[in-house]
Amino acid sequence: MDKYCFGIDVGGTTIKCGLFGVDGEVLDKWEIRTRLEENGKYILPDVADTILAKTAEKHLDRDEIAGVGIGIPGPVNAAGEVQVAVNLYWGYVNVVKELGELTGLKVKAGNDANVAALGELWQGGGAGYQDMIMVTLGTGVGGGIILGGQIVAGAHGAGGEIGHAHVDDTMTAACNCGGHGCLEQLASATGIAKLARKLLDSCDTPSVMREYKNVSAKTVFDAVKEGDALAIQVAEQFGNYLGKALAVFAVVVDPQIIVIGGGVSKAGPVLLDYVTKPFREYAFPSCRTT
Amino acid sequence: MDKYCFGIDVGGTTIKCGLFGVDGEVLDKWEIRTRLEENGKYILPDVADTILAKTAEKHLDRDEIAGVGIGIPGPVNAAGEVQVAVNLYWGYVNVVKELGELTGLKVKAGNDANVAALGELWQGGGAGYQDMIMVTLGTGVGGGIILGGQIVAGAHGAGGEIGHAHVDDTMTAACNCGGHGCLEQLASATGIAKLARKLLDSCDTPSVMREYKNVSAKTVFDAVKEGDALAIQVAEQFGNYLGKALAVFAVVVDPQIIVIGGGVSKAGPVLLDYVTKPFREYAFPSCRTT
Repeated sequence: MDKYCFGIDVGGTTIKCGLFGVDGEVLDKWEIRTRLEENGKYILPDVADTILAKTAEKHLDRDEIAGVGIGIPGPVNAAGEVQVAVNLYWGYVNVVKELGELTGLKVKAGNDANVAALGELWQGGGAGYQDMIMVTLGTGVGGGIILGGQIVAGAHGAGGEIGHAHVDDTMTAACNCGGHGCLEQLASATGIAKLARKLLDSCDTPSVMREYKNVSAKTVFDAVKEGDALAIQVAEQFGNYLGKALAVFAVVVDPQIIVIGGGVSKAGPVLLDYVTKPFREYAFPSCRTT
Repeated sequence: MDKYCFGIDVGGTTIKCGLFGVDGEVLDKWEIRTRLEENGKYILPDVADTILAKTAEKHLDRDEIAGVGIGIPGPVNAAGEVQVAVNLYWGYVNVVKELGELTGLKVKAGNDANVAALGELWQGGGAGYQDMIMVTLGTGVGGGIILGGQIVAGAHGAGGEIGHAHVDDTMTAACNCGGHGCLEQLASATGIAKLARKLLDSCDTPSVMREYKNVSAKTVFDAVKEGDALAIQVAEQFGNYLGKALAVFAVVVDPQIIVIGGGVSKAGPVLLDYVTKPFREYAFPSCRTT
């Protein structure tokens, strides 16, 4: 009988793993490092190893494991194949086949932001809703659009790839997608860190962020909570980019709810404040309270 | 037996009327002026009069008329009621009830851009597709999003209201919606005329557009066809706003096709050229050929 399942979220920095009851109950969660070496060839073997290790550690019976659900940062087709996942340095990978062979378990794969959106609709911030925009702020910016309870996968698997919406004409640095001025370059963990470094380099204003050798999105929001003036400026810049972009997305599909997830969202309500203000300012009147 | 139907498109300047066979064949088409006086109270009576006049002129039997389909520039709910249509100076109007009583015919009402999108999917540029973004360039900029053959009406009836996507931070003039820097302020017939007047006022460069007292979108694109340098600059500005915005919309729902309609689209392929170039430049790679 199916009792357990594994949920795997492959990110550009870490791979988040979870052991769940089939009803969605979290039984265990842990992380492993994402090894990007040699075009990310170790990623799926590492995932298989950690699943098998956890199965042994918990003395799980294989017949009680329903399967593995895995989210990939890139477009994934219905057969579970990836053509290219830039943040993992992957070209073509058949995730379902490869991970299925390595683990001997049933595998389902999807775009990380899309499966995150489905998860939020099932158990999380979107529970009870049918029409939702989910934004995932991690190493990159992902998105999942759900309308009528169904993922909008899109004609080219690019539905909800809102991290690659062009939002800034002045940026000359190239995004992983080849474009420039993409939302992901400004509102991801990496983007926030870059906004911070740029501001720190442009002035001599004291800031607790200067004590860190590597400024991260976490450093920034921790400093915001301490009232650090420069960190607040960075949060305002980030919030302005994201809030304004969300206002545009909202006028396209007019969702009931917008859910923000991903590592950066761990900053909590303070982050939401900086995003909500510009959203309300730039949103179409009927969407302003979304 | 149902043989005929009327199709009415209420715009801010003219009301476009059509008599159709129920298979979609165009039997007659004509226009009347949109009377905006006294909060647009004459609009529906004028529509009823012209329908009844055409019925008499063509000696149509009432029993052979399936009904009237009418598109309104504003959100229309499932019951055919409008809460507010800014371009018609309307507050609450029950279109289905009022026009039904005035004509004695069955009436269906919808948002103009949404019904235009459904029409294009049935008989027009979107025939054979299921996932489409339709942009209507008229007095305003409307939009209709169709996914899986269904209109995305949205949680607040604002799905596809892409004319009110914020695209320019520098604009201080207010849009009808209360926002500023909306796509509609820059890429509608009115918006194009304003871009032209602004450019003409800013320099002394000769232009055929200067011969017209009132520069319109038609003046601009006629001048573009004659190779007028200033008109080409206006077309580039317009195309840059619209193409860039479409690239953002495309990454949200990833449609199979984008269809451009409305009065301004009568300018033809020349308009498309100016929109396509920035679209391809700013679109996510997988959507670039949409």
